[in-house]
Amino acid sequence: MTVTETPIALVGFGKIAKDQHVPSIGKSEAFRLAATVSRHGTMEGVPAHKDLASLRSGQPEVTVVALCTPPQVRYAMAREALEAGLDVLLEKPPGATLAEVEDLIALAQDRGRVLFATWHSRFAAGVAGAKAWLAEREILHGTITWREDVRRWHPGQTWIWKAGGLGVFDPGINALSVLTEILPRPAHLTGAELEFPSNQETPIAARLSFLSGAARIEADFDFRQEGPQTWAMDFETSDGRLTLADGGATVFAGDRKLSQGDALGSEYDGIYTRFARLLAERTSEVDLAPLVHVADAFMLGRRLTTDPFIE
Amino acid sequence: MTVTETPIALVGFGKIAKDQHVPSIGKSEAFRLAATVSRHGTMEGVPAHKDLASLRSGQPEVTVVALCTPPQVRYAMAREALEAGLDVLLEKPPGATLAEVEDLIALAQDRGRVLFATWHSRFAAGVAGAKAWLAEREILHGTITWREDVRRWHPGQTWIWKAGGLGVFDPGINALSVLTEILPRPAHLTGAELEFPSNQETPIAARLSFLSGAARIEADFDFRQEGPQTWAMDFETSDGRLTLADGGATVFAGDRKLSQGDALGSEYDGIYTRFARLLAERTSEVDLAPLVHVADAFMLGRRLTTDPFIE
Repeated sequence: MTVTETPIALVGFGKIAKDQHVPSIGKSEAFRLAATVSRHGTMEGVPAHKDLASLRSGQPEVTVVALCTPPQVRYAMAREALEAGLDVLLEKPPGATLAEVEDLIALAQDRGRVLFATWHSRFAAGVAGAKAWLAEREILHGTITWREDVRRWHPGQTWIWKAGGLGVFDPGINALSVLTEILPRPAHLTGAELEFPSNQETPIAARLSFLSGAARIEADFDFRQEGPQTWAMDFETSDGRLTLADGGATVFAGDRKLSQGDALGSEYDGIYTRFARLLAERTSEVDLAPLVHVADAFMLGRRLTTDPFIE
Repeated sequence: MTVTETPIALVGFGKIAKDQHVPSIGKSEAFRLAATVSRHGTMEGVPAHKDLASLRSGQPEVTVVALCTPPQVRYAMAREALEAGLDVLLEKPPGATLAEVEDLIALAQDRGRVLFATWHSRFAAGVAGAKAWLAEREILHGTITWREDVRRWHPGQTWIWKAGGLGVFDPGINALSVLTEILPRPAHLTGAELEFPSNQETPIAARLSFLSGAARIEADFDFRQEGPQTWAMDFETSDGRLTLADGGATVFAGDRKLSQGDALGSEYDGIYTRFARLLAERTSEVDLAPLVHVADAFMLGRRLTTDPFIE
């Protein structure tokens, strides 16, 4: 069988594009990396463009792009791509505001383009199993612990500290993307505390409290975690305990191990498999729920000022 | 013709209930004020209850409630009311988070109840005319000026300064409710600055910048406006200028006066007329767009600390 690989361009060629998108596109039978679009980054053997206009004129056969730019500039690029008739995959978060993503949804629909707002953590190995296990049980209480060292995982990413960069919610939204995927009943925020370094525009830590039905779910996001790193969730249910570790790759339910893997393991492989299906079906997929919770946390949360952060 | 007036209870009997809801219900041929539900407030000649349970058991004929409590406790009351089988009108904002309002939408649909999330400023005398006028024109640029004296309009409303109380966005969301109603093309926020008093949890001033298509719209919200109060908008278009004053009651388009009135004039009369129609049609109306922009402003906005505010 001959499989025709869809040529795809990576737009924004920073850490996440190189570390995750390139290998997963390389493994995919559905896609081949046909170009990069970036003001700075390039990759040996792959045609490089400075902007979308250059891609469109130089390689018109490329009709699919994956946007991996920082969220503050994602909307303008996505809009330009959709208006140029391209199908678009968005890294998370899909935008810096809810309204701009709603605008992109309407534009994609209007132009008949596929828009896929990805949440990579939803593709962690244990998430589907966790969701199925929780679906049959009543959650009594949940805790989310998402603590990592910003210096280790986000070196030089100054955008993360600028308004719209979300700060600790950049990883925290991954937890919320898993939470909103696996909860049998939607949650809503009831209170939050956000710690802002005195010299930065986005929070370095956040403590959130949600209700899902009658179940209280508490989240602890922190960017100051040295030593062991934690991306974990824990749910007490009416019928045993569910534990997710390694960002959802490893899951224990009751006494049973549902899955085991490494954080980030094959998440992006799953993203490109899903994207291929969405393109084949000409269907968009944009779930705003994780970003809604982040916006709610900024709106409802109390602001605390903490020590300056210097990278 | 005999008109049967629907008995309605006001839940939360503070300033807005007394100043606006009571007179408009009094004038309405569709409703009569049958009860109040409040821990503190009562009204002579109207049966008073401390909570919804007491209303339900004491006056089961009352199946419609208007919730005028502070936004921080609106969700719990609305949920209880919908679960008890009541139709519900919500004062603005419809909740303290987007997710809780989405939860109420789902609950109302599930139970076959009418949920009406009101935006009173949309009922200002000139709003419909402004919308029709703009629909045929291209906006080039817009400014919104919403400056009022918090001490004058919100005396003793300590909830407004607590997380979830929105601060200057409590009036500012009125402007956004008008903006989202009259703009021919949806807007999204591109930048914001929020000023927080050093001793309060919500902002006292905000400057917002939106894009609607190619048109830049700038908003200036301020709670520190002594002397003349301003609730105004101004749009330059391809074919003349539109000016809204008095919160949308007075509108000039080009050289023509489209309407003239007082701020807040008959807004609540319009709300109860609309609510009667929604009840007759068994249809809900919940537009989250104004609250989405507020959440976006908190998420994307830069935070500045300013002088403490002491009432």
